Amino acid sequence: MLYLIGLGLGDAKDITVKGLEVVRRCSRVYLEAYTSVLTVGKESLEDFYGRKLILADREEVEQEADNILKDADISDVAFLVVGDPFGATTHSDLILRAAKLGIPYRVIHNASIMNAVGCCGLQLYKFGETVSIVFWTDTWRPESFFDKVKKNRQNGMHTLCLLDIKVKEQSLENLIKGRKIYEPPRYMHVNQAAQQLLEIVQNQRLRGEEPEETLCVGLARVGAEDQKIVAGTLQQMCTVDLGEPLHSLVITGGSLHPLEMEMLSLFSIPENTSESQSIDGL
Amino acid sequence: MLYLIGLGLGDAKDITVKGLEVVRRCSRVYLEAYTSVLTVGKESLEDFYGRKLILADREEVEQEADNILKDADISDVAFLVVGDPFGATTHSDLILRAAKLGIPYRVIHNASIMNAVGCCGLQLYKFGETVSIVFWTDTWRPESFFDKVKKNRQNGMHTLCLLDIKVKEQSLENLIKGRKIYEPPRYMHVNQAAQQLLEIVQNQRLRGEEPEETLCVGLARVGAEDQKIVAGTLQQMCTVDLGEPLHSLVITGGSLHPLEMEMLSLFSIPENTSESQSIDGL
Repeated sequence: MLYLIGLGLGDAKDITVKGLEVVRRCSRVYLEAYTSVLTVGKESLEDFYGRKLILADREEVEQEADNILKDADISDVAFLVVGDPFGATTHSDLILRAAKLGIPYRVIHNASIMNAVGCCGLQLYKFGETVSIVFWTDTWRPESFFDKVKKNRQNGMHTLCLLDIKVKEQSLENLIKGRKIYEPPRYMHVNQAAQQLLEIVQNQRLRGEEPEETLCVGLARVGAEDQKIVAGTLQQMCTVDLGEPLHSLVITGGSLHPLEMEMLSLFSIPENTSESQSIDGL
Repeated sequence: MLYLIGLGLGDAKDITVKGLEVVRRCSRVYLEAYTSVLTVGKESLEDFYGRKLILADREEVEQEADNILKDADISDVAFLVVGDPFGATTHSDLILRAAKLGIPYRVIHNASIMNAVGCCGLQLYKFGETVSIVFWTDTWRPESFFDKVKKNRQNGMHTLCLLDIKVKEQSLENLIKGRKIYEPPRYMHVNQAAQQLLEIVQNQRLRGEEPEETLCVGLARVGAEDQKIVAGTLQQMCTVDLGEPLHSLVITGGSLHPLEMEMLSLFSIPENTSESQSIDGL
């Protein structure tokens, strides 16, 4: 049996009791390590589970899925995913391969940012299409995702923006020379996402509203003890300090339910934050 | 501290390790019992947690929230919710009351149908606004939610339909006479949802497409060992047998990614199902 097991969002103890039981009895346990991260590392998970984990990076999962599935018809293999196994499409791919090989599979679900984002008080059913915001480079500055944000807002729906993660990426030079030397991991912060969004807004010269005043919610380390949520304008999101990754950003859909407003007020940025920040920065 | 703890979707062991630890040390533990249900009852949860649970129905949570919050500033109180605590809005209400009373709170997230629905292979980020389908009565047959389904489809997005649950409802007669006698719980099946949808489609005389041929996905007991997923037309959803509750229905957004199509093919209804069902039914 192939088990796809969600680890939730915070630390080692966010696995479900059922998930933990399966992990402890499987013959091999893989940890998917490229679409998201917990606030703790592989070693903490190994200590808590009492099991060695095999790190599965993107190459492994996409090119050597057969290794992962080896003998899964006669023994139990677990594939651990931060959040829920169905946040990213790649895991459908693993299931389809298993199905072709006649290997049965089971999913043990957990929280993902796709539903845990509700903790900011915005109503989950009012979220439209989710978008991803990628790191811009000097030569690649995609804006097309912003059409989806606009469409969601036109329909009164909130947009969850997943922020880019670069894990095990090669520099262009190393890629060309075929050197397997990897850059340190990078995680986009809410500040950078907001700055890119503001730049798009300025490029597109959006009129009739003041996009920099759009109400947004920044979220960091959702599910962890030190999670941080702030509600403020897109402009404010450029400077707010949310600390360590992972970050996510929500662009609200415009008209909010009174209950949503009241919840967001719990997380509003104090009036003098940007001022005190600039004082600190002197 | 007030803890809002998601229980996930299947049985007692779908709680997270962190959630279980908190449940075992809290001075009072409430179980919210009106927005969803697990495949096991209160007693199974009590056995597994080793704790007595206080059932909190809608009245309790809405009218007597202060009982739930009593002494939560000096002791730990847990409020358990099937799925994740932020699927339904009422729990924002509890948090706001806690905030006003100066009671700190923490959320322990879990899977909810809002993200676990990804197990059918449809990509989560392509879901639009979620709708609820309620039991029609002789005099109340709301259709307005269907505009949201149409809008989602126009935008190429899938629609998750949450199906009605009637727990602790009074008959009109008992309500008028003020008798606290409750009807047995009722859970809408995919069949009934599909039939109501077909009726709306016929009332609205939708042209240019064949709505009864719309590709849908029926899901039952997601996360449980005996979960069932079927993909087929809206017409087929009227007769397919998914067994016990809870059921959910997805109306696809039209154009599917090849990977979505391939995943759905794992769940397609065998050609002769409706025939063999009618044979079984003879």
